[in-house]
Amino acid sequence: MLETLDLTRSVSKSEFKDVMPDLEIRLGNLQREAKDAGIPVLVVFEGWDAAGKGTLINELLLAMDPRGFVVHPYKSASEEERLRPYLWRFWTKLPERGRIAIFDRSWYGRVLVERVEKLVPKSVWSRAYDDIRSFERQLADDRAAIVKFFLHISPSEQKKRFKKLENNPATAWRVNKDDWKRHRQYGDYLEAVEEMLARTDADFAPWTVVEAHDRRFAIVKVFQTVIAALEGALRDRRGRAAPTESRRESDPLPINVSSSILGQIDLTLSLEREAYEKELRLCQARLRELEHEVYRRRIPVVIVYEGSDAAGKGGNIKRLVRGMDPRGYEVIPIAAPNDTEKAHHYLWRFWRSLPKGGHIAIFDRSWYGRVLVERVEGFCRENEWKRAYREINEMERQLADAGSSILKFWIQIGKEEQLRRFEERQNTPAKQWKITEEDWRNREKWDAYCMAVDEMLYRTSTAYAPWTVVEGDCKLHARIKVMKKVIEEIEKRL
Amino acid sequence: MLETLDLTRSVSKSEFKDVMPDLEIRLGNLQREAKDAGIPVLVVFEGWDAAGKGTLINELLLAMDPRGFVVHPYKSASEEERLRPYLWRFWTKLPERGRIAIFDRSWYGRVLVERVEKLVPKSVWSRAYDDIRSFERQLADDRAAIVKFFLHISPSEQKKRFKKLENNPATAWRVNKDDWKRHRQYGDYLEAVEEMLARTDADFAPWTVVEAHDRRFAIVKVFQTVIAALEGALRDRRGRAAPTESRRESDPLPINVSSSILGQIDLTLSLEREAYEKELRLCQARLRELEHEVYRRRIPVVIVYEGSDAAGKGGNIKRLVRGMDPRGYEVIPIAAPNDTEKAHHYLWRFWRSLPKGGHIAIFDRSWYGRVLVERVEGFCRENEWKRAYREINEMERQLADAGSSILKFWIQIGKEEQLRRFEERQNTPAKQWKITEEDWRNREKWDAYCMAVDEMLYRTSTAYAPWTVVEGDCKLHARIKVMKKVIEEIEKRL
Repeated sequence: MLETLDLTRSVSKSEFKDVMPDLEIRLGNLQREAKDAGIPVLVVFEGWDAAGKGTLINELLLAMDPRGFVVHPYKSASEEERLRPYLWRFWTKLPERGRIAIFDRSWYGRVLVERVEKLVPKSVWSRAYDDIRSFERQLADDRAAIVKFFLHISPSEQKKRFKKLENNPATAWRVNKDDWKRHRQYGDYLEAVEEMLARTDADFAPWTVVEAHDRRFAIVKVFQTVIAALEGALRDRRGRAAPTESRRESDPLPINVSSSILGQIDLTLSLEREAYEKELRLCQARLRELEHEVYRRRIPVVIVYEGSDAAGKGGNIKRLVRGMDPRGYEVIPIAAPNDTEKAHHYLWRFWRSLPKGGHIAIFDRSWYGRVLVERVEGFCRENEWKRAYREINEMERQLADAGSSILKFWIQIGKEEQLRRFEERQNTPAKQWKITEEDWRNREKWDAYCMAVDEMLYRTSTAYAPWTVVEGDCKLHARIKVMKKVIEEIEKRL
Repeated sequence: MLETLDLTRSVSKSEFKDVMPDLEIRLGNLQREAKDAGIPVLVVFEGWDAAGKGTLINELLLAMDPRGFVVHPYKSASEEERLRPYLWRFWTKLPERGRIAIFDRSWYGRVLVERVEKLVPKSVWSRAYDDIRSFERQLADDRAAIVKFFLHISPSEQKKRFKKLENNPATAWRVNKDDWKRHRQYGDYLEAVEEMLARTDADFAPWTVVEAHDRRFAIVKVFQTVIAALEGALRDRRGRAAPTESRRESDPLPINVSSSILGQIDLTLSLEREAYEKELRLCQARLRELEHEVYRRRIPVVIVYEGSDAAGKGGNIKRLVRGMDPRGYEVIPIAAPNDTEKAHHYLWRFWRSLPKGGHIAIFDRSWYGRVLVERVEGFCRENEWKRAYREINEMERQLADAGSSILKFWIQIGKEEQLRRFEERQNTPAKQWKITEEDWRNREKWDAYCMAVDEMLYRTSTAYAPWTVVEGDCKLHARIKVMKKVIEEIEKRL
């Protein structure tokens, strides 16, 4: 997931000067409101070495009343700490109601550095996920607001920063052998970080990954995230006290800082017809062979298609299965739930249609409707779609544990291209059935959908069930990209 | 925990005839109300072979509208099921909103029979706890009511029932070799059952152990538990819809069926002064030696004392530590929380005072205040103390994982004995400070406290942190019992 983030994001100097004074005032006010409401606040900073944690924490502090917070820098465990359960030193540092505790590195040390450096055996660090989840859940049940940041930079950026520090005599001491050693282990750490993000993201204690190449962008993102979290906690608190009272709407935040995966994809990617035909034949032949192997080895395969309206999911699926033996796959189109389905948990109908070992289930739309259309159209409550990320991750983990291969494709087209296709459908009698009033209405919510898609890609990309974003403006490119990915994934399993 | 239950509990024929018609009507009404409210209900029956699951399920069904429920008998996995994730076959059997599904054996098969019979490796069944918890939490978040029964009989009762079935030609076929094999493995199953009860008990899906020697008692307990669960679910649902509406109080249930551990202890146990003096000297000498061993091996030891007012906790602790080196232990008296403590999570102050490796912490009252005095006196909300069982189990598991030995003592005295001691305190000038108005007030809530104690013993006795109930009417007996238990536990660790 981290590797798909757009690290070039930035905020200009003038924008920064425009928005920061307000954000600082707003944060200061919220700190006071949280104090009056008795909400304990925990802010966690994790991230790569040299990602700028120190700077960010300082910026945050400057906006706040110093009597209301405390910063806990991470130190390796003291003798006192080593003789007690791992979480003891964090329990003892918890903020009182109304106060803010900032953790410069935190209880995640066990599943990051202690894991990667092999300071503790696997049985210990893997148990820690459970402990951490129950720790955060206990605090949240007691009404704490929990904000967790992971500051992300690329390995080359890290190297550049290390070099720069080394070349300046005044800062050379800040980079040592261990830093370089960890730099060389970037890949191992990446794996640990990804697992951590996937396993400890929760609606009551969500992770925010901060693209930290640009200092100003990172500062704005941290401020806005803390502001949104405090406003949310205060709303909940008020909501609990007086649910009928009309809720104060928060002012919008000035800069869009959500991690955008969509924003950076290259929609100009395309494939010539001739090359396409050749690739298509090869892929279809290979897929047929693989389908038999999958059957022979009793591997269940789950393929999920999601995408914008008119992205070309149907045609894509058609090409994927054309060469395959229909006894080995099933295409499952997902429409709005019927009455029986509505009378169950929203995941129920998807559980029912899971493939058995040896079969390939292709979902044309899927359980992700919960965090896409149901979210954007308000068909479910906010707490329901927020909870759904974790529920979905849990379901997919169970599928993976049971041996499934899981492939998820998001097919994205540009707004202009969508318009072109809508108009084409409207003007072609044979295609008119494909376009409805609803499609036009959805199109008006383009930005809201993009935001939902980005959050979905971000919160449900896991090692065991990753998303592949497919550039869909050229249908030929999109079809071959999906087929090659399916082939690659299945070959990996054989 | 199971072994401490009172299996002799029974309901007489005439009592049974008195209460059942009402319970049946009430259950029937609740079924309709749950239907109208759209609450899906899951009732799980687990238990020993020949514990009477079939009979109980039938009784339950007879009281209900047959159009509203379905029974799912357990079968070993079909081919279809084996080729899918474990929980698939239960997801597909979930009831619609407003309907009731009864599971005759359930998703717990993986951590019981599949575990004990070694049908799946440890990595698989131990992962299943996570899957089961997330399954039940997802359903409860979606407002399902979940009721889980474990029908408990002793191995000798099981043997008796098997023989009886075998001796009757009409029923002989019901007992086969596998049943006898499982009977011989009663101990292995017991271990698995205890772990299951401890790890999958949750406020949203609690376990109820049913003492099933007496058929009538078991029927009443099952009916009353289902009635209470449905009434609770309906209350929650109404509470959500209209929190200001005054909640309808449920009628009390006719027979007290809560598992009573207190009810069966023998308060006449006592020790002569002479024998006491001799034992005391031996125990104290041994404890001093063990304290040094504990220190040398850096084992943290947590000893919790809870008990009725005037149960003699103070005197008991005094004898326990008399021979010990004060550098190795600490007695931590727990009073009502001060302002700083109140400004944190209720477990915070206990985390702070956990002993480090090599030290013995003796808590005179403890975190169990949450589910005792705070529950009975209404110092915390119902959802808070209900949640606390799990929070406490999680904390103690973390202590155990970090190498702690955990001993918990509940010292119980009879109501008469308490009165005698209260009066003695009042009439002895040197002891008057020990008795306050509050003690007399608490005494008036004797029954409510007993019920809270029983539920505490029942929900927080775990393999890693078991309770020992100490008969306290004879203080000499109580002191020696505690010391011997501490010695035994520490010796086990060395």
